[in-house]
Amino acid sequence: MITHINPVGSMNLLSKLEVDQLTLSASEDIYLLYRNCSLAVLNSGSKTDSSREILERYKNFEINVLSRERGVKLELANAPEDAFVDGEIIRGIQEHLFSVLRDILYVSNEIKEQAHLDLNQSSHITNLVFSMLRNARVIHPRTEPNLVVCWGGHSINDVEYQYTREVGSQLGLRELNICTGCGPGAMEGPMKGAAVGHAKQRVNDGRYIGLTEPSIIAAEPPNPIVNELIILPDIEKRLEAFVRMGHAIVIFPGGAGTAEELLYILGIMLHPENARQPLPIVLTGPKSSEEYFKSIDEFIGATLGHEAQQRYQIIIDDSARAAQVIKQMMPKVKDYRRAIGDAYSFNWSLKIDSDFQHPFEPLHENVEKLNLHFDQAPQDLAANLRRAFSAIVSGNVKDEGIKQIEKHGPFIIDGDPKIMKMLDKLLKDFVSQHRMKLPGSNYEPCYRVGKAK
Amino acid sequence: MITHINPVGSMNLLSKLEVDQLTLSASEDIYLLYRNCSLAVLNSGSKTDSSREILERYKNFEINVLSRERGVKLELANAPEDAFVDGEIIRGIQEHLFSVLRDILYVSNEIKEQAHLDLNQSSHITNLVFSMLRNARVIHPRTEPNLVVCWGGHSINDVEYQYTREVGSQLGLRELNICTGCGPGAMEGPMKGAAVGHAKQRVNDGRYIGLTEPSIIAAEPPNPIVNELIILPDIEKRLEAFVRMGHAIVIFPGGAGTAEELLYILGIMLHPENARQPLPIVLTGPKSSEEYFKSIDEFIGATLGHEAQQRYQIIIDDSARAAQVIKQMMPKVKDYRRAIGDAYSFNWSLKIDSDFQHPFEPLHENVEKLNLHFDQAPQDLAANLRRAFSAIVSGNVKDEGIKQIEKHGPFIIDGDPKIMKMLDKLLKDFVSQHRMKLPGSNYEPCYRVGKAK
Amino acid sequence: MITHINPVGSMNLLSKLEVDQLTLSASEDIYLLYRNCSLAVLNSGSKTDSSREILERYKNFEINVLSRERGVKLELANAPEDAFVDGEIIRGIQEHLFSVLRDILYVSNEIKEQAHLDLNQSSHITNLVFSMLRNARVIHPRTEPNLVVCWGGHSINDVEYQYTREVGSQLGLRELNICTGCGPGAMEGPMKGAAVGHAKQRVNDGRYIGLTEPSIIAAEPPNPIVNELIILPDIEKRLEAFVRMGHAIVIFPGGAGTAEELLYILGIMLHPENARQPLPIVLTGPKSSEEYFKSIDEFIGATLGHEAQQRYQIIIDDSARAAQVIKQMMPKVKDYRRAIGDAYSFNWSLKIDSDFQHPFEPLHENVEKLNLHFDQAPQDLAANLRRAFSAIVSGNVKDEGIKQIEKHGPFIIDGDPKIMKMLDKLLKDFVSQHRMKLPGSNYEPCYRVGKAK
Amino acid sequence: MITHINPVGSMNLLSKLEVDQLTLSASEDIYLLYRNCSLAVLNSGSKTDSSREILERYKNFEINVLSRERGVKLELANAPEDAFVDGEIIRGIQEHLFSVLRDILYVSNEIKEQAHLDLNQSSHITNLVFSMLRNARVIHPRTEPNLVVCWGGHSINDVEYQYTREVGSQLGLRELNICTGCGPGAMEGPMKGAAVGHAKQRVNDGRYIGLTEPSIIAAEPPNPIVNELIILPDIEKRLEAFVRMGHAIVIFPGGAGTAEELLYILGIMLHPENARQPLPIVLTGPKSSEEYFKSIDEFIGATLGHEAQQRYQIIIDDSARAAQVIKQMMPKVKDYRRAIGDAYSFNWSLKIDSDFQHPFEPLHENVEKLNLHFDQAPQDLAANLRRAFSAIVSGNVKDEGIKQIEKHGPFIIDGDPKIMKMLDKLLKDFVSQHRMKLPGSNYEPCYRVGKAK
Repeated sequence: MITHINPVGSMNLLSKLEVDQLTLSASEDIYLLYRNCSLAVLNSGSKTDSSREILERYKNFEINVLSRERGVKLELANAPEDAFVDGEIIRGIQEHLFSVLRDILYVSNEIKEQAHLDLNQSSHITNLVFSMLRNARVIHPRTEPNLVVCWGGHSINDVEYQYTREVGSQLGLRELNICTGCGPGAMEGPMKGAAVGHAKQRVNDGRYIGLTEPSIIAAEPPNPIVNELIILPDIEKRLEAFVRMGHAIVIFPGGAGTAEELLYILGIMLHPENARQPLPIVLTGPKSSEEYFKSIDEFIGATLGHEAQQRYQIIIDDSARAAQVIKQMMPKVKDYRRAIGDAYSFNWSLKIDSDFQHPFEPLHENVEKLNLHFDQAPQDLAANLRRAFSAIVSGNVKDEGIKQIEKHGPFIIDGDPKIMKMLDKLLKDFVSQHRMKLPGSNYEPCYRVGKAK
Repeated sequence: MITHINPVGSMNLLSKLEVDQLTLSASEDIYLLYRNCSLAVLNSGSKTDSSREILERYKNFEINVLSRERGVKLELANAPEDAFVDGEIIRGIQEHLFSVLRDILYVSNEIKEQAHLDLNQSSHITNLVFSMLRNARVIHPRTEPNLVVCWGGHSINDVEYQYTREVGSQLGLRELNICTGCGPGAMEGPMKGAAVGHAKQRVNDGRYIGLTEPSIIAAEPPNPIVNELIILPDIEKRLEAFVRMGHAIVIFPGGAGTAEELLYILGIMLHPENARQPLPIVLTGPKSSEEYFKSIDEFIGATLGHEAQQRYQIIIDDSARAAQVIKQMMPKVKDYRRAIGDAYSFNWSLKIDSDFQHPFEPLHENVEKLNLHFDQAPQDLAANLRRAFSAIVSGNVKDEGIKQIEKHGPFIIDGDPKIMKMLDKLLKDFVSQHRMKLPGSNYEPCYRVGKAK
Repeated sequence: MITHINPVGSMNLLSKLEVDQLTLSASEDIYLLYRNCSLAVLNSGSKTDSSREILERYKNFEINVLSRERGVKLELANAPEDAFVDGEIIRGIQEHLFSVLRDILYVSNEIKEQAHLDLNQSSHITNLVFSMLRNARVIHPRTEPNLVVCWGGHSINDVEYQYTREVGSQLGLRELNICTGCGPGAMEGPMKGAAVGHAKQRVNDGRYIGLTEPSIIAAEPPNPIVNELIILPDIEKRLEAFVRMGHAIVIFPGGAGTAEELLYILGIMLHPENARQPLPIVLTGPKSSEEYFKSIDEFIGATLGHEAQQRYQIIIDDSARAAQVIKQMMPKVKDYRRAIGDAYSFNWSLKIDSDFQHPFEPLHENVEKLNLHFDQAPQDLAANLRRAFSAIVSGNVKDEGIKQIEKHGPFIIDGDPKIMKMLDKLLKDFVSQHRMKLPGSNYEPCYRVGKAK
Repeated sequence: MITHINPVGSMNLLSKLEVDQLTLSASEDIYLLYRNCSLAVLNSGSKTDSSREILERYKNFEINVLSRERGVKLELANAPEDAFVDGEIIRGIQEHLFSVLRDILYVSNEIKEQAHLDLNQSSHITNLVFSMLRNARVIHPRTEPNLVVCWGGHSINDVEYQYTREVGSQLGLRELNICTGCGPGAMEGPMKGAAVGHAKQRVNDGRYIGLTEPSIIAAEPPNPIVNELIILPDIEKRLEAFVRMGHAIVIFPGGAGTAEELLYILGIMLHPENARQPLPIVLTGPKSSEEYFKSIDEFIGATLGHEAQQRYQIIIDDSARAAQVIKQMMPKVKDYRRAIGDAYSFNWSLKIDSDFQHPFEPLHENVEKLNLHFDQAPQDLAANLRRAFSAIVSGNVKDEGIKQIEKHGPFIIDGDPKIMKMLDKLLKDFVSQHRMKLPGSNYEPCYRVGKAK
């Protein structure tokens, strides 16, 4: 079955030149990426979340970008049926489809055109992130601070999931909006909860912003509640988008990946230039997650020190209070932005060191070279610890990382003995709490803490 | 704790005279009714749905209507905490509170004032129903036909409940709105489902209309998704409101009450003056409900005849098709209304016999006198059968009816032998399907079919 | 040519009973009034403003109220062509037509129905004014104070007219809205000016409210810029509507009628209960009107005293300043209303003595009995002086008054010698400034100041 | 006095890089242009329209673009007072100020950045025009065809001016929008008229689009009713913007410039690829302009032939009919665009030959070389005749052209004797109708028709 889909959003107003570039220029690689992301989005109504299964089932799926006098049009063949109602594509999925077109094909053309962009420069990276968000029309100049970024694991347990919904509901009741990575688990719960909270408060323009990136979207298709979808080019730009758009951050339980995110934001907040930035960071979970946060808090205290601990607040089993704490900080965020002349909708003045903007390649030699001693500024130690966790995430679940471990054995993570002791304890806690791998499987660590013997 | 609440909706613009009447005139009876309905609404966030438990727990609750220069204000004391967020009442609950004030206190004053209203006249009853709906601002003159009334039991099983959500979702995906009795079960499922369907289609002005009446609202508080709440004075006016506002009717599984509703709408549709009225009626449920609808269909066929069966369509286990059938009829509804010059938002031309506008008092003598023979027009037989079911509902669950049964023994329902046989079979099916009482309890029939021996 | 017109505004949602009453009940008198007002409104595009000429030219004009299932419809025969564009009625005129239907036919029915209304009671009169304004949907509960009432003559000279436009433009630039009597001259200029001011400020929901009454609308049809038209039953209710809705009053030059209006508002503001009411009153005109305002100011000073003079401000030839003075008072009006709990959109707390709510019948004996001495409270003297001016207006221009004068000679206005001297001077000034009658004609006074010899 | 002005429109969302470029990069020439255009816009409230006088009076005026964290800000020193109300800039002027910033500074930066843009290519010119209009947010994808371009002289007489208002009013009554060159005369009249028509029809989102260019804006500042202002880089791009955005064209009386515009649009419409393009062109004026249009029509008939005359319609002294003709064509425009898949808001499929996209330099040798014979396609002859008129306009009023004439004598316009005869007659008619120069002055022709002796 063949269907034609009309553009929406900023894809609705392309010039002929832009249309021509879209339809002609994509390399085979980019086309494949584009096709698979589109398929993921079309499939968001489906029950399975395995990207492999989806790709297999819809191997006949095709998507073509057609040029019309008035602009662009999409032609779909053999698309998942659930994306349609009585032959018409569901509006939300139509929007997501054109988000994919916009962020994958269109933006890659734009970047090529802009000869002056130098993606080694920190300010140019920030500029690119802003341009993509602006082009996606998610930056609203006049809006008061109200956007809460929610981070946390995608495979949390039922009790934790239910808790994320409650926090979402409490945030929604306070007319706050949600921004997550847009997959399942802690990325979905707060949105669903907030939708209920917004309905109770008769907020009918609630925002459920999903920030994703090409390597994740296929495995974790945006849930249909996401009403603003942006696909950033890579993990680092996605993280930067989170922290420049968000006015508060909630961290739910998760595994090494969540630890990495916490170290990312702490590393940024510890930068002296950000000392006065008001950004509420709330770590919260149900009663059963108390141990988890205790482990993390101790680790942060022992490595990055008391000042780092001051930057966040741990709230156990009190979803209303978590939301209250954030709501009460919003006027301070606003006052600060106004005082220094910054925008409410994009935090230009937040200093993000280029260490946090460039990817870390998780090779054995890079891991071994990490400086994990106290002879550096806390934000630098945070950056290096983040890299260590990034390697563990890779060794645990990513194809490339698993291959590295099979070939060279576990990563050797070494440094100051005190830090190593704390790290070892934290990782063991994660293992015993079944956060390193899905429950049921026996976890074989991909790392060794301390010098190799 | 004392809170003051500002008016919303049409209660926002009262004259001084109207305010004075509101604050002074209520009799003790009406005040108690008003207080209890308000409490029900304030409690909609709570987990329990037992009205007795709620009344008990909040026996210190007080509500006062205050007069201010600018209009009316509510003063609450000891109100349920869940109605508030950080000391502010939740907007949806605030709206419901003022719906109660509007429909119970204000309207009763208005009726008193309007000397010309004669509630024995059919046209005056219709006029009153219209005036209440207009005053509640739920009649939107320019809107296309899109309102689906959903009827069905309030204590259906999980499979059935899940199915009502799916139908709701399919209706919402087709941009249809929902109107129900606003309690739990088949009254809640379609609304929740439609909210998801609307979100997927980016419909952000979806309507979830709840029609209730004073004797029910306390036991079945409107769920918070209801964004337009109207409290009609009694069951008959509520039923009339349903059929004059709705553009289609979906009937989910239920017990004797649902049978009563089906007989109500069939009795109306069989009236010769309504022969050309296009009003889709869909009876639908999951696979496991197939027997239920078969029993009902056979009963209708045997009593009201083939023509009555043509008026509805039974769809088993196909939520998409149920919604499709309705969606496809909407243009016909519109064309018909336009052709005869009727409004889209209120079906003035639907003939409702005064038999269906006046309550039936379920006393033994009234039940015995019911004409249940074939010597009458089908719509009249439908009216009498409806009364029989109304008596059974009363004998099963209503205080007054239960007392009657205790005193005088079961109702004697008698008439044509063929009708009696079918009725007996249908009721026995209901019993064996556990639809006469909550599962677990042993059902002792409150009726006897056929002459007393 | 016959045309059918669909209802708009609150006439869009009538019940069948209401429609029946509309189409049946009107007496011949009311029908004639209704027909002539409708004709006036249909004619607002025309060049002539003579009501007699209009009535003559369109003597074949007919208007019928038709009943349809969905509500009411108007049938026009031989209506002025300029009210239509390519066969479709102009939207603004359509609205005005249904304002006439609403305020003349519908409201008269409503008043009949409301048995409890007692139009001798002050509070009931206020209630009726409010109900009519609410029914016309001109009361907006949430709006900030911003409505400026403009009074002044309908046949002012070109310099004065141009000045009223400039003041209107300055008010519009400050995002204030305009309410006038909706005829020509000082009633039209401020609206036209404000429309330009609003356009410059990109205000696209500017309000141009016209308050009129049946005996005036035919002679002074609402200009097409009026986007909210209300026809009050008589002069006193119209005046009450002005002062309860308005947040400021501008008085432009005019004749005895304008003096009457000034005495009306001063009489109200001098009431001790209104002592703290903040209501800016600005008397303003071009340089050439300076003498006019000087005469008036002296008269007020000598009769009502210094306190009365404090209630208004005279601004000559400075349209920007006139608008500034008003704009700066708006926060005070708001604060006061909030402090005492009054509405922003209707001044419930303003005390209007019943003296100002009931009409004065301008008969010789009534005029002679007027107490024009200093032995009374200033607000009472203001009420009596207002009556004297009312009689002069009547003797000058109204049919009934002119007949009285022809029969009994001039009105004898007598009282305290000082007051008489001042009054005589003021009236002579009016005569010499050609404000008592149209320029060119020789004015024969209809009054004599001081005892008859 | 120094004032700071916040950005509006698309200037509200600049990236830091864009802000930096704006504040740093402007050359002195561009800054001066920018400053003078800004001054023109600030001065639109003023009475004088002489650019020299304005520049002289405000020679101390300064404007600076400031960089803030949140974006750009303007700093004004010694700006015209009339642009402010109580110290706040008038919103409409604020918008125009940022239109100037956007179109003069920002766009020139953008063009520099876009390495791939080749302004010799026809499609790239069209692309640039589209990009500028899109960036100005004047392209609304979903709107029905309703935009009427009005051309005509800027110094027409009172009767003609009044007629342009009437046509505007009739267009506005038919809910059509207006696009003009935004100066006085025939550019202002239709907008003012349409504003009244829109008000009568309660259209409160009427569009009054002004397209101008840097060399004109200072002399003809946009009147304050213009609510969308775009400054195109030169005359040809401005003309292209007119015909790609407009759905109909009205041509009022004017001089050689108006003849040039008519030849421009006829040249385009005569291109075989545009044969099926439905674009109503109406030449209209009051009774007194009949001769003018007769002269023109004869000239077109004799030179471009009957087919060219079929492309327009002349309507004398009937403003309602002029508007009707256009209104009736709108469905055809829509159908055609839909049929070929073109946008409603930008006419991509209209073929504009590169002859019409590139400027003609009015030098003696270029004029002499013009091919004004019948041995070419009519659209080519139209292009060459347009160039001849362009030269005359330049020789009449532009600095550069006047100097050329002083130095080398009149332009020699030569070609086919029949064409020359017609041209001579037309130009003599223009002279005798005082359309070549302001009335009162004695016109000395800057051209000679036929070979030099």
